[in-house]
Amino acid sequence: MAGSVYGNIFKVSTWGESHGKGVGVVVDGCPAGLALCEEDIQVFLDRRKPGQSKYTTARNEADKVEILSGVFEGVTTGTPISMVVYNTSQRSGDYSEIASYYRPGHADYTFDMKYGFRDYRGGGRSSGRETIARVCAGAVAIKILKEMGIEINAYSKAIGGITIDKVDMSVINDNPFYMPDEKAAKEVAKYADEKLKEMNSMGGIIECVIKNVMPGIGQTVFDKLDANLAKAIMSIGAVKGFEIGAGFNVAHMTGKENNDEFTTSDNGDIIKKTNNAGGILGGMSDGSDIIFRAAIKPTPSIAMLQNTVNKSKEDIEISIKGRHDPMIVPRAVVVVETMAAIALVDMIFEGMTSKMENVIKFVKNL
Amino acid sequence: MAGSVYGNIFKVSTWGESHGKGVGVVVDGCPAGLALCEEDIQVFLDRRKPGQSKYTTARNEADKVEILSGVFEGVTTGTPISMVVYNTSQRSGDYSEIASYYRPGHADYTFDMKYGFRDYRGGGRSSGRETIARVCAGAVAIKILKEMGIEINAYSKAIGGITIDKVDMSVINDNPFYMPDEKAAKEVAKYADEKLKEMNSMGGIIECVIKNVMPGIGQTVFDKLDANLAKAIMSIGAVKGFEIGAGFNVAHMTGKENNDEFTTSDNGDIIKKTNNAGGILGGMSDGSDIIFRAAIKPTPSIAMLQNTVNKSKEDIEISIKGRHDPMIVPRAVVVVETMAAIALVDMIFEGMTSKMENVIKFVKNL
Amino acid sequence: MAGSVYGNIFKVSTWGESHGKGVGVVVDGCPAGLALCEEDIQVFLDRRKPGQSKYTTARNEADKVEILSGVFEGVTTGTPISMVVYNTSQRSGDYSEIASYYRPGHADYTFDMKYGFRDYRGGGRSSGRETIARVCAGAVAIKILKEMGIEINAYSKAIGGITIDKVDMSVINDNPFYMPDEKAAKEVAKYADEKLKEMNSMGGIIECVIKNVMPGIGQTVFDKLDANLAKAIMSIGAVKGFEIGAGFNVAHMTGKENNDEFTTSDNGDIIKKTNNAGGILGGMSDGSDIIFRAAIKPTPSIAMLQNTVNKSKEDIEISIKGRHDPMIVPRAVVVVETMAAIALVDMIFEGMTSKMENVIKFVKNL
Amino acid sequence: MAGSVYGNIFKVSTWGESHGKGVGVVVDGCPAGLALCEEDIQVFLDRRKPGQSKYTTARNEADKVEILSGVFEGVTTGTPISMVVYNTSQRSGDYSEIASYYRPGHADYTFDMKYGFRDYRGGGRSSGRETIARVCAGAVAIKILKEMGIEINAYSKAIGGITIDKVDMSVINDNPFYMPDEKAAKEVAKYADEKLKEMNSMGGIIECVIKNVMPGIGQTVFDKLDANLAKAIMSIGAVKGFEIGAGFNVAHMTGKENNDEFTTSDNGDIIKKTNNAGGILGGMSDGSDIIFRAAIKPTPSIAMLQNTVNKSKEDIEISIKGRHDPMIVPRAVVVVETMAAIALVDMIFEGMTSKMENVIKFVKNL
Repeated sequence: MAGSVYGNIFKVSTWGESHGKGVGVVVDGCPAGLALCEEDIQVFLDRRKPGQSKYTTARNEADKVEILSGVFEGVTTGTPISMVVYNTSQRSGDYSEIASYYRPGHADYTFDMKYGFRDYRGGGRSSGRETIARVCAGAVAIKILKEMGIEINAYSKAIGGITIDKVDMSVINDNPFYMPDEKAAKEVAKYADEKLKEMNSMGGIIECVIKNVMPGIGQTVFDKLDANLAKAIMSIGAVKGFEIGAGFNVAHMTGKENNDEFTTSDNGDIIKKTNNAGGILGGMSDGSDIIFRAAIKPTPSIAMLQNTVNKSKEDIEISIKGRHDPMIVPRAVVVVETMAAIALVDMIFEGMTSKMENVIKFVKNL
Repeated sequence: MAGSVYGNIFKVSTWGESHGKGVGVVVDGCPAGLALCEEDIQVFLDRRKPGQSKYTTARNEADKVEILSGVFEGVTTGTPISMVVYNTSQRSGDYSEIASYYRPGHADYTFDMKYGFRDYRGGGRSSGRETIARVCAGAVAIKILKEMGIEINAYSKAIGGITIDKVDMSVINDNPFYMPDEKAAKEVAKYADEKLKEMNSMGGIIECVIKNVMPGIGQTVFDKLDANLAKAIMSIGAVKGFEIGAGFNVAHMTGKENNDEFTTSDNGDIIKKTNNAGGILGGMSDGSDIIFRAAIKPTPSIAMLQNTVNKSKEDIEISIKGRHDPMIVPRAVVVVETMAAIALVDMIFEGMTSKMENVIKFVKNL
Repeated sequence: MAGSVYGNIFKVSTWGESHGKGVGVVVDGCPAGLALCEEDIQVFLDRRKPGQSKYTTARNEADKVEILSGVFEGVTTGTPISMVVYNTSQRSGDYSEIASYYRPGHADYTFDMKYGFRDYRGGGRSSGRETIARVCAGAVAIKILKEMGIEINAYSKAIGGITIDKVDMSVINDNPFYMPDEKAAKEVAKYADEKLKEMNSMGGIIECVIKNVMPGIGQTVFDKLDANLAKAIMSIGAVKGFEIGAGFNVAHMTGKENNDEFTTSDNGDIIKKTNNAGGILGGMSDGSDIIFRAAIKPTPSIAMLQNTVNKSKEDIEISIKGRHDPMIVPRAVVVVETMAAIALVDMIFEGMTSKMENVIKFVKNL
Repeated sequence: MAGSVYGNIFKVSTWGESHGKGVGVVVDGCPAGLALCEEDIQVFLDRRKPGQSKYTTARNEADKVEILSGVFEGVTTGTPISMVVYNTSQRSGDYSEIASYYRPGHADYTFDMKYGFRDYRGGGRSSGRETIARVCAGAVAIKILKEMGIEINAYSKAIGGITIDKVDMSVINDNPFYMPDEKAAKEVAKYADEKLKEMNSMGGIIECVIKNVMPGIGQTVFDKLDANLAKAIMSIGAVKGFEIGAGFNVAHMTGKENNDEFTTSDNGDIIKKTNNAGGILGGMSDGSDIIFRAAIKPTPSIAMLQNTVNKSKEDIEISIKGRHDPMIVPRAVVVVETMAAIALVDMIFEGMTSKMENVIKFVKNL
């Protein structure tokens, strides 16, 4: 199966390795008539770049996107949108040693098993740079959602075991962790300094809130909206868990505690009093905010000594030098937002054929 | 989109509502030459039936599967396998009242929003009975995996906040909760009796272990094995979270703690010393046991008084009578196993074209 | 790959062999709100049944469709529609001999090569009875198209080398060949009587006209409307060619002759003066009638002596006894209509997301 | 639906317009271990270039392919292969006039209807240059097939009504029409000179022969091998018909004439005495050569005066200036070969999971 293609109506095909000529994506199924330019994409890519604090590595990659097709006179034509970011600052020399062994926590071993060999430079296809392509495609999706009044915001909810106490989006760019809570960010900085000294790394949790999704989006059996969000998010490297609403807490709640009761708002809309469901019921959006979380593991590449085997199956000790992030969480925030957008757009497009009434409206307008 | 179709090579299409004539599934893409009969499927269906203890409802549905195509002289022909289970014991009378309101925690409201109306009898398409079709298809997948030496076992890890202390599969059928720990099962029984009195319900966690999956199965970007397992499991009604290996615990682990170091076993195979990854690295199986967990919310249908709105948007109080499970967990165990099997078979089939070497072998053997 | 599943948004999964318990289909992706009942489907099935003249075999199968799901109170719910037709009159005894050899023109040999063995009773999965499932699904599609004002009509254009001279749909049921030209039908009857005596069979051409398709339906590259129609029609057994508009005649036309010039109609619409394109330009409908033709080969099962090999690779002579049509064309007409409908509905649904304008309309109406 | 993505296991996503920055493709699902370099692709692209005779236009585009990912040390890695050809010689000035009207035989009108507007420069997404991307992807597919011993060869069978009398592949590059018959080529040259004077264009037929396909490839219902070939070929712009084996001739053949009888060859293989089926029975390859034909319409862009309407719906007269081919056939030959290759590889990959026996072999080899 071609595992780098996502989506049914809004289709995204990514390509590229960390040390190849570049990474890129083809977005097929974007409707015609959407204003789009490189700036719209670059804004999201810039949130992904390393070298923005001492807590993310100083690789300082100048990732600049170029749109090669699908846009004419500043507007999408409905044809495939091809975007590319050329690799400019990867130094092959940094990685030559790892060709001979399997790094713990990395895909080296599994890639070898699957294909018989691998591009050992950096992470190859499994490199974090692969997310560049996703972010480009997701930026288009986010623009589409914006036209619908839908907003997606993700942030670091916890890093290294330190959790935020509140969500204040206005301070989110004032700390290097993309945390909406300054106090928690300060504690994380302290903890991060310790781990940096140890040459160790740390994990965290990203929370994402999607506002203004109309009720009824998502399918009822296999293509439930939460199931598709789970796949989209878990497909991001380093994600080891996904939960929605009350998430794993539902395990020790009772039905009475967990059920979100319905009532009506002042202007007569049906709303829920609580939101343990996280905005999705029976696989379909229920009109509340959609709230989910992703568990991010610690960066596997650490300079601290580790034991592993080399390709001749001998036990060896390694210390991974070079430029590596001590935490993935802050950079992954924009990837979570963009992947959620890609999944959601596909599902909204699906929803357009749910009722004969809407199908007939479309036919008659032509 | 057709949301009741799952899979790329091994394709599963389900149909049926709780109060329609029956539920069923078409499995397309099952290879020819697999011994298959109703017995193989019935064994899994029987693990799903209610009425097996006082803690699951006494609906006593006699779900009997019938294979309508795709098998000849006891062996699959490679053509689609159609299976059906006719509904025999659903009483419409039990459900006529709920047509007028939206039950909290159910898909009533979202279904109405999506389609404009709904089959209000029981859960309609969102009924738990829809899982019958999945279990039938999954039973076929499990048989295929068995031929490969792959075993899937799931069990209740926690119910109502009470977690098992050990995994002893030999006692799993000796308690009504499908728990591999008798002591924990006794505590759950006590807690369940309390909730039954309250007319309340409880949630839990199911853990699943897949043994003997060869390394390298899964794709590296969007179709990661864990991403597909997440989608398959989260598509089961009542699941609100999915995690693999250390799961959400990775959030407060360091890289040194989380990385699974490689070494070699006595017979020279590459193995890992720990398994925080849960058997999947970079989206591909790494040869260790694949271990994941699903969070199951409490049954939304409770007799305890709840507040909600009716279709005229008036606030009302309801008490859901009728036959309902006070906990979903024990019955969902087989659904988790079978969904995992469906996802895994599709991914193994995908792996067959990963290397030119295997493709050429196939061509030459013909 | 699961080869019995067709479609992207409007998905059709068929199952069943000629001598299994039945044949059927699951239609997933039909919008909610379409009035549907068995009668709507039966009307199309009845046009497919053999035993309606001396020129089609007297098997007199009483194919009665049953809808098992997806319809509630006479209207589709948006959930999968499962339909089944049980096999009632297949006599295994008729076919027992052919297990030992490969019939020329049939899929016996190729089936063995693909799967290692086959269900030799009748045509198994390759039997003409497999088209029952397609017709059921297509009947739903035709109903959807009817709501849009779109009509599909197919007829026998030629049989045994005798071609119609005009198209008079009013006489189409007055002859056993589904020909819209009585004079041609009489000649075909004469020719058919000769072939019947010889124990031979004959082929023909079916033409299909689709009226009132709005312009712009179809994709521009791989999923061109004509490419998808071609696949849908060529997937019908016995079809060996597909052409649209002037078809193979374009090969000796000049650009001046072939181009359809544009002009405006009396009420100001853009129309074409001719229709060599057959209603499709650049893969998209252009507003004219869509006109295509399918070439149908002669029935391969003839009682006349043929040479072939048996499974031990010995040269043998055979005469295929039993109940077989001397011509496939009349019965294939409804299959061509219904397959065209299935392909077209999928493409119209696709068209709904072509413009941001239509996507926003959908979102705002919720 | 994303209409520029083709395939299920071997997936091809194309992008690019005639006057955008370039055209390209992402091939996902190519197995690892295939030797691949730009040369392998360029050889096929060069067969597509215009400016190679006075009968194809002198645009002299220097189309040079660049591989951006998926290849490492000269071998495919199993990850997506991105290829791009930058547009270097398109002159916008040539096309500015056509923005105001609809050219007969072109997709201008249908594109406007579908998307609301179009990139009017050249053919935009509907330009013949879009086939560059297909040829690149197809070149990879052809290389895979070569490893399997499968050969694909297409040629011009007829142009302007003049048909070849024999197939002598050795002379195919000695005439500008890619005809394997020198005598016919001379006649075509004469006829073409006439049409050039008239400022007219001509159509033709391309025939394609695929050798050494193992029997049993293709699915039995919707994904028949011939149905998929039909879709792949009909998706090429200008193709108005597809037929296989005896094609439309089956319409006036009898069963006795049409059936290919089986026998055994000298070395004991089962073969057929004739090949009216064109190598495909019941949707699966039967071991004989696969032979099909495509009908190519005349180039719609002619300088001869034509009537049409402009965007204000006024009747006008036009003469299309600029650089246009008087015939499409010779250039389309390589597109037919490469599209057939793409379809066939996907189907062969599908065949790998047809039998449990092959699946188990794969599992055990790991």
